[in-house]
Amino acid sequence: MINEKLPKIWYGGDYNPEQWDKEIIDEDLRMFKLAGIDVATVNVFSWAKLQKNEDTYDFEWLDEIIDKLYEKGTYVCLATSTGAHPAWMARNYPDVLRVDFEGRKRKFGGRHNSCPNSPTYRKYSSLLAEKLAERYKDHPAILIWHISNEYGGYCYCEQCADGFRGWLQERYTTLEKLNKVWNTSFWGHTFYEWEEIVSPNALSEEWGVDNTNFQGISLDYRRYMSDSMLECYKLEYNAIKKHTPDLPITTNLMGLYKELDYFKWAKYLDVISWDNYPSLDTPISLTAMTHDLMRGLKQGQPFMLMEQTPSQQNWQPYNSLKRPGVMKLWSYQAVARGADTVMFFQLRRSVGACEKYHGAVIEHVGHENTRVFRECAELGSELQILSDKLLDARVEAKVAIVFDWENRWAVELSSGPTVALKYVDEVHKYYDALFQQNIQVDMIGVETDLSSYDIVIAPVLYMVKKGYAKRVEDFVHEGGTFLTTFFSGIVNENDIVTLGGYPGELRKVLGIWAEEIDALFPDQSNQIVMGEQWGELNGDYPCGVLCDLIHSEGAEIKAVYGSDFYSGMPALTVNNYGSGQAWYVATSPDRSFLQGLISNLCQDKGIIAPIAPVQGVEVSTRSRKADSYIFLLNHNDIETTVDLGALKTTNIITNKQIENTITLPAKAVKILKKH
Amino acid sequence: MINEKLPKIWYGGDYNPEQWDKEIIDEDLRMFKLAGIDVATVNVFSWAKLQKNEDTYDFEWLDEIIDKLYEKGTYVCLATSTGAHPAWMARNYPDVLRVDFEGRKRKFGGRHNSCPNSPTYRKYSSLLAEKLAERYKDHPAILIWHISNEYGGYCYCEQCADGFRGWLQERYTTLEKLNKVWNTSFWGHTFYEWEEIVSPNALSEEWGVDNTNFQGISLDYRRYMSDSMLECYKLEYNAIKKHTPDLPITTNLMGLYKELDYFKWAKYLDVISWDNYPSLDTPISLTAMTHDLMRGLKQGQPFMLMEQTPSQQNWQPYNSLKRPGVMKLWSYQAVARGADTVMFFQLRRSVGACEKYHGAVIEHVGHENTRVFRECAELGSELQILSDKLLDARVEAKVAIVFDWENRWAVELSSGPTVALKYVDEVHKYYDALFQQNIQVDMIGVETDLSSYDIVIAPVLYMVKKGYAKRVEDFVHEGGTFLTTFFSGIVNENDIVTLGGYPGELRKVLGIWAEEIDALFPDQSNQIVMGEQWGELNGDYPCGVLCDLIHSEGAEIKAVYGSDFYSGMPALTVNNYGSGQAWYVATSPDRSFLQGLISNLCQDKGIIAPIAPVQGVEVSTRSRKADSYIFLLNHNDIETTVDLGALKTTNIITNKQIENTITLPAKAVKILKKH
Amino acid sequence: MINEKLPKIWYGGDYNPEQWDKEIIDEDLRMFKLAGIDVATVNVFSWAKLQKNEDTYDFEWLDEIIDKLYEKGTYVCLATSTGAHPAWMARNYPDVLRVDFEGRKRKFGGRHNSCPNSPTYRKYSSLLAEKLAERYKDHPAILIWHISNEYGGYCYCEQCADGFRGWLQERYTTLEKLNKVWNTSFWGHTFYEWEEIVSPNALSEEWGVDNTNFQGISLDYRRYMSDSMLECYKLEYNAIKKHTPDLPITTNLMGLYKELDYFKWAKYLDVISWDNYPSLDTPISLTAMTHDLMRGLKQGQPFMLMEQTPSQQNWQPYNSLKRPGVMKLWSYQAVARGADTVMFFQLRRSVGACEKYHGAVIEHVGHENTRVFRECAELGSELQILSDKLLDARVEAKVAIVFDWENRWAVELSSGPTVALKYVDEVHKYYDALFQQNIQVDMIGVETDLSSYDIVIAPVLYMVKKGYAKRVEDFVHEGGTFLTTFFSGIVNENDIVTLGGYPGELRKVLGIWAEEIDALFPDQSNQIVMGEQWGELNGDYPCGVLCDLIHSEGAEIKAVYGSDFYSGMPALTVNNYGSGQAWYVATSPDRSFLQGLISNLCQDKGIIAPIAPVQGVEVSTRSRKADSYIFLLNHNDIETTVDLGALKTTNIITNKQIENTITLPAKAVKILKKH
Repeated sequence: MINEKLPKIWYGGDYNPEQWDKEIIDEDLRMFKLAGIDVATVNVFSWAKLQKNEDTYDFEWLDEIIDKLYEKGTYVCLATSTGAHPAWMARNYPDVLRVDFEGRKRKFGGRHNSCPNSPTYRKYSSLLAEKLAERYKDHPAILIWHISNEYGGYCYCEQCADGFRGWLQERYTTLEKLNKVWNTSFWGHTFYEWEEIVSPNALSEEWGVDNTNFQGISLDYRRYMSDSMLECYKLEYNAIKKHTPDLPITTNLMGLYKELDYFKWAKYLDVISWDNYPSLDTPISLTAMTHDLMRGLKQGQPFMLMEQTPSQQNWQPYNSLKRPGVMKLWSYQAVARGADTVMFFQLRRSVGACEKYHGAVIEHVGHENTRVFRECAELGSELQILSDKLLDARVEAKVAIVFDWENRWAVELSSGPTVALKYVDEVHKYYDALFQQNIQVDMIGVETDLSSYDIVIAPVLYMVKKGYAKRVEDFVHEGGTFLTTFFSGIVNENDIVTLGGYPGELRKVLGIWAEEIDALFPDQSNQIVMGEQWGELNGDYPCGVLCDLIHSEGAEIKAVYGSDFYSGMPALTVNNYGSGQAWYVATSPDRSFLQGLISNLCQDKGIIAPIAPVQGVEVSTRSRKADSYIFLLNHNDIETTVDLGALKTTNIITNKQIENTITLPAKAVKILKKH
Repeated sequence: MINEKLPKIWYGGDYNPEQWDKEIIDEDLRMFKLAGIDVATVNVFSWAKLQKNEDTYDFEWLDEIIDKLYEKGTYVCLATSTGAHPAWMARNYPDVLRVDFEGRKRKFGGRHNSCPNSPTYRKYSSLLAEKLAERYKDHPAILIWHISNEYGGYCYCEQCADGFRGWLQERYTTLEKLNKVWNTSFWGHTFYEWEEIVSPNALSEEWGVDNTNFQGISLDYRRYMSDSMLECYKLEYNAIKKHTPDLPITTNLMGLYKELDYFKWAKYLDVISWDNYPSLDTPISLTAMTHDLMRGLKQGQPFMLMEQTPSQQNWQPYNSLKRPGVMKLWSYQAVARGADTVMFFQLRRSVGACEKYHGAVIEHVGHENTRVFRECAELGSELQILSDKLLDARVEAKVAIVFDWENRWAVELSSGPTVALKYVDEVHKYYDALFQQNIQVDMIGVETDLSSYDIVIAPVLYMVKKGYAKRVEDFVHEGGTFLTTFFSGIVNENDIVTLGGYPGELRKVLGIWAEEIDALFPDQSNQIVMGEQWGELNGDYPCGVLCDLIHSEGAEIKAVYGSDFYSGMPALTVNNYGSGQAWYVATSPDRSFLQGLISNLCQDKGIIAPIAPVQGVEVSTRSRKADSYIFLLNHNDIETTVDLGALKTTNIITNKQIENTITLPAKAVKILKKH
Repeated sequence: MINEKLPKIWYGGDYNPEQWDKEIIDEDLRMFKLAGIDVATVNVFSWAKLQKNEDTYDFEWLDEIIDKLYEKGTYVCLATSTGAHPAWMARNYPDVLRVDFEGRKRKFGGRHNSCPNSPTYRKYSSLLAEKLAERYKDHPAILIWHISNEYGGYCYCEQCADGFRGWLQERYTTLEKLNKVWNTSFWGHTFYEWEEIVSPNALSEEWGVDNTNFQGISLDYRRYMSDSMLECYKLEYNAIKKHTPDLPITTNLMGLYKELDYFKWAKYLDVISWDNYPSLDTPISLTAMTHDLMRGLKQGQPFMLMEQTPSQQNWQPYNSLKRPGVMKLWSYQAVARGADTVMFFQLRRSVGACEKYHGAVIEHVGHENTRVFRECAELGSELQILSDKLLDARVEAKVAIVFDWENRWAVELSSGPTVALKYVDEVHKYYDALFQQNIQVDMIGVETDLSSYDIVIAPVLYMVKKGYAKRVEDFVHEGGTFLTTFFSGIVNENDIVTLGGYPGELRKVLGIWAEEIDALFPDQSNQIVMGEQWGELNGDYPCGVLCDLIHSEGAEIKAVYGSDFYSGMPALTVNNYGSGQAWYVATSPDRSFLQGLISNLCQDKGIIAPIAPVQGVEVSTRSRKADSYIFLLNHNDIETTVDLGALKTTNIITNKQIENTITLPAKAVKILKKH
């Protein structure tokens, strides 16, 4: 449980009382009650209000609002306000301002605008966190700390360059080592002094999005920037922990956000929290995957849905309303996949500046008689009924998909073989195949233990870190099924190719050699030809992006290419290794191929869906001890019936017994407790 | 009359004798006569020639050219040459150089390149204007002053930032006020010192085109920049007026140009002049609307067509030739809508640099035996025949469309609900519906008196300025028909939302509440369902961009949405208020819907076209006292016949009587005086 | 012969031993022998390795590698390593760093990164070249010098601006002259001091790609930058020649690369070498044209194919593998068109940084058992068989196409009439028409003597340099057939229009006047109507981009436009002038029109293909004294048969006699010696 003071699924969200007068705040508190809201995230953007100059702090308004919330029964998720530095600080201490990718020193403005290596920023942000911790450490309203806000963005200033050189010295000790791991003998880039190294941006090694001349430096700069921000976070974390060792601390992550290595960050978060902003056209399974990834960051520990919109966003090109029922449906999707909170950005819409058209529980009209409010209140009321039933319940999976930020960076920094290769898309293809069959998946990092899984899928495992190939071998040897794809096993942690033939360190376990890699134009495709041995899967399946030209070195050839000069060469292989199997998919296949293949693999391992798949109905299960809760989420626009088979269940909202079949209205959710 | 010295429609254009030797100039003057040209705009880009350093002025060549023109019977529109500062000034006084949106200090080059707050620029530009005024104040050739050229572009230098802070202090007096109207409590942007405020550009609050984190500062910066340039203009204006109080002064505007608030500028222009550069694919009605807008800037006062090309442009991607007859057709379109001049850029093509492929009356071949010259001469000869018949004649309209630059800025700075909403497009939709039915329209600003109109249409009146709602109420109360649309009544002059329910201050007069605003993807649409009450308009009409979800609060529901979850909710309402009606169109409809609706509204008010609409034939009427001149402009590529109904008329070029029907050859124009 | 030490077609490529340890180098040398490789280009990017600071040079490793290569029978193409300056130099002497088009001072990084006017760069690059020359002047391995690498890119720093002013002073002597040729009276740009002139970039006169306010300055800056880099080259050239007057010197050009005037550069290269990187979708005839252009740079002298990939590139969006046979096919295409070397980038793939996925003879797997290696070895073996048969053989053509970099710059810097006009595309259209008919073409510059040609085609000869019109007149007068197109004869070398009617100085020889130029939208087209006189070519052919509206002034009208208001005006004319003819194609036609027209012109001049055209089979002939070698290159994916007519030949690889017909497998090449 995140905090036992509030033993239920927390319900609430970001609230900015600093933007409102007392009359409106009182009205808000009244409506919070109507909506069943019991937690408010406050103080997210109040640094300028809390501290008007170097020496003057004013917490009185915050005292007042926290007291008031608590009096009215609303707990507090207390932010540290360090997501945006004050204007006076930017003016007096320009070191807080970033230099952007184009090499331009920024001025005051925007939000994520502090240089993570700024001494001023680090000093005043940790000081503020500490002052808040000291002041509110005993306040009964406080449930959790929320450090800063949506960390992100990189800086390329001179103090960051200095810090980078220090970070490199620590990592590589000598320039000889560094010259080697970056392969600086290429293009005569040898460094003789640390000071010769500059940040890789549009003025030096990079251009556009993820284009670089030197993958080594670009990869390390991403690591360094992620670490630099994490350092800012840790400074605040430590300052707070000194005073409130027992209160949990988090910062709100952003799902698939590319720039920070969340698996590394997760180690320093007491609980994961994240902001979920799908668009009307985001695939349902991509959102599901992201929830699973957020859950995976701390090995299955329940997480917080920190932000979502009750109705619409403002920053997308076309900000559709969430259709009736969708807010609730998507809220439960989070819960079904491990969330123990449902929280919004924002409880009340602001009156000016760029987020005023972002949806809120309380809209500009200011009263409760809106569709959006009614839907929020309905969900609030259900969450009261649910009480603590689901808290701490875990999602259990026998299939894992590997997701690695550093690998992702490396794949997309690669110059060649194709610009069409997007790591998340390839991962999502495999996730979706499992999702469509109601197979529960864990998204895991490369440090996660594999032994509890039957199947581990590592799409485009381009970068194989030290020791990982051995861990895969052990997993397979002990009976596991491992699957990886084209463009895997190519490089080490520094994007240096493993010589001797692709897929490098994975070659042994996979029993193949990839001789060449063909890149297809967007209008080209090849086919994966599945022979008769595949029964109903027999046939040709389109594939593209990249086609590895592989040779078996012991692996069984399960399918071949259908055209071009490599027609007949293996497109799908499986290698028996120890007691297990290692599969290789040599190209990027279409959806139907993957559903067939994955379905076969699961059957082989005896992994079966709790409920047979029905188009558009998402199924996910959370369990705690003996109790299992099956979530049925009808994403269809029409009523849909699901066959429960032999399952006997109880709807935990209505307390009705359900068996045989259940019919879900459009967009409806049912949570069924298994008997 | 702009200047009684030349009591006819002026005919001529920009002429750059500084680029030519005497022999060519003599030849030009000969050809001007052949073409009926009687006015030349000179000295537009001669600053460097007039002033070779801080202290040295040389007007002799200008004396000579003006004398020569006058001798040959050509009057002069005398420009002040301050549209481009000299290279020596840029080198010696870098404060004249702008800092661009990306924060880069520019170097010498281009054209619109002076910082409007540069002390050097202001000093030397007004000094030059004054010297010109002193020197030529009694010259009989001078008809009008032309200050600078096509003002535009913004600057983001430190002196502009300083000026901005001063401008803000004057407007808001205190930082408390400013923090409030910009809602700086959002994202912790509170300012404690004026010096903390920086210009909003790519280094601070803005990015790309019209994206900003803070609408308040961005909106005010646009006002400030428009004012800064206006200040430059006024300095020259005042310097000139001291010496020639009776000569009119103008500067050439650019129609729908976004960056300057032309309604504010118009107050300081004695006569409006503008540059009309439609492309082959510009809708005819958009050009017509722009003429009407230019006429509206000074409440119907005839304006100058200062520039148009005789044949082709050079700066568009594909610079089509104007087809035979089109130059004349489009010239008369300007006259039909209020122009008292027809002037070209340029009288002679330059020999080098970027505009050498811009069309001219005299082409590079240098003689009069060209299609373009012949067409120019033919028009020149007709304008001689017309003499002063049309001068000062007014266009009379009972329908007005509101156009407001500040509202336009605010609409397009909005973050959400959609990037697809373009103010001019929405305004043009309504204009076009009226244009297609030959209904005369006035384009008016928000300060224009409404009482003379029967119908006032204010598309996307997002920003409702202080007192404007009351003026609309009064107008409707007294019997007027008011129409506005989705996304109206949302904010005040600082882009701060009017709380309590959209459409804010317009809610009362409209009798509705807009609860939500849905944004549609480009491939989505809804329908406006017009019931049987609409007679022949009965049916479904596609709509999109935004759909307001409205509730009637007294208004009659005239049409509803046809699909999605808000199917059946009102899409079109009318509220009876006092003696008038207030209509609300809740979404962006297609053309056929608007033609039907507008036609109905006009019929209700007894507004009828002077001539029944014929596809492709534009109709516009100018009147002076008892005389009415109907322009028929055949934009079709084929001969077209128009039914004149009961009208009896005389063709004022041929002096022939015309009744019953008139047949216009392709691209032909007829000007008929009503009996 | 490039160097008599190796009297055969050189075979090899770029090799970077500085990236590898001895064991791998030994293995590489073994494999070079297997592949028939006899030349390695070394030291391309070793500056940082050779010189670790201002005073310390270390050539020992290079001694060793050159010795080792020579011992194993591999000759050396010795590069000077000045294509990328060392990091220490960038840090200690920032003058070596460029300022980019956006005005940003760059930092260390990338490759083509040295300011060409940097005193530091010039000093140390020529010093290094000299040291290398001194050291290796007597080494028997060295075949040729390779200065720097792929010169390119522009710089806009202050030292370049200074240099530009000096360059201008030298060219124009006085500011009066400069103001005139740049037409600075336009937009008041008159300069009174040389120091007022700044480089034309995004901060001054230019924006985006090839957009400028002043063509004159932009054109001269391109000339100046090309000259500046050439100056760097010449400094190295001279330093080397002092020590090795008899060794040839080259630098690798990049075919159609736009930024350098290769015709001017060619004068200072002892032999042309270039890097050929077609993509899967590059037209075969465009590659052929580029080879012909490279050959034309030195009037037909055989050139070096310095780089091509054995398999795939890394820097294209989609890096397809070269299909089986294609590497050999494209290698012979180079030889067929004048190459006396076949060389690769690269002999071994690097292990890290941005080119590690660029194909190589030796791939990451490190052994010879790959498709790519086998194909390389097969070609190597054939080249041994060929020995010196083809060396120094020339390509003979009676048709020339004019290609001029300065004209190209001017055409694409033009503001108007259309953005759609691309010089290379228009040239290629004409080249392709000849290529498809197996007519051999010389690509010539504007200084090339015309007298040896029967037909000279100058597409879009927009800029007519001093004396060129006279040379064309003489050529035609003496019986030559000259053909040019729309948008020709417009300007002089400074992009100043030739007044008096287009096509200016060409008007006399062409016998026409172009009154207007219409620009068509991409979705528009007109037609060229070929009358019955044209026999089987009779019909309508689509045309577009630009349509000149011309009048005959003596020329015979051979075809007319089919639509629009200029329907019936001439679209194709021919003027008899002296004993020859001058053709004018007034618009941009489609392929079928050009094939018909060109075929007719060739027939008229008795120019016939050596072999009748077969779709997809390229034919080119090289001759030396009495010997003629016909290359047949089957680009088809299928076996194709070619009719040899009366030819009797011998296959010089197999030594078999061939007559009547010959059948080529897919992608096959045959080299036939004529009897």
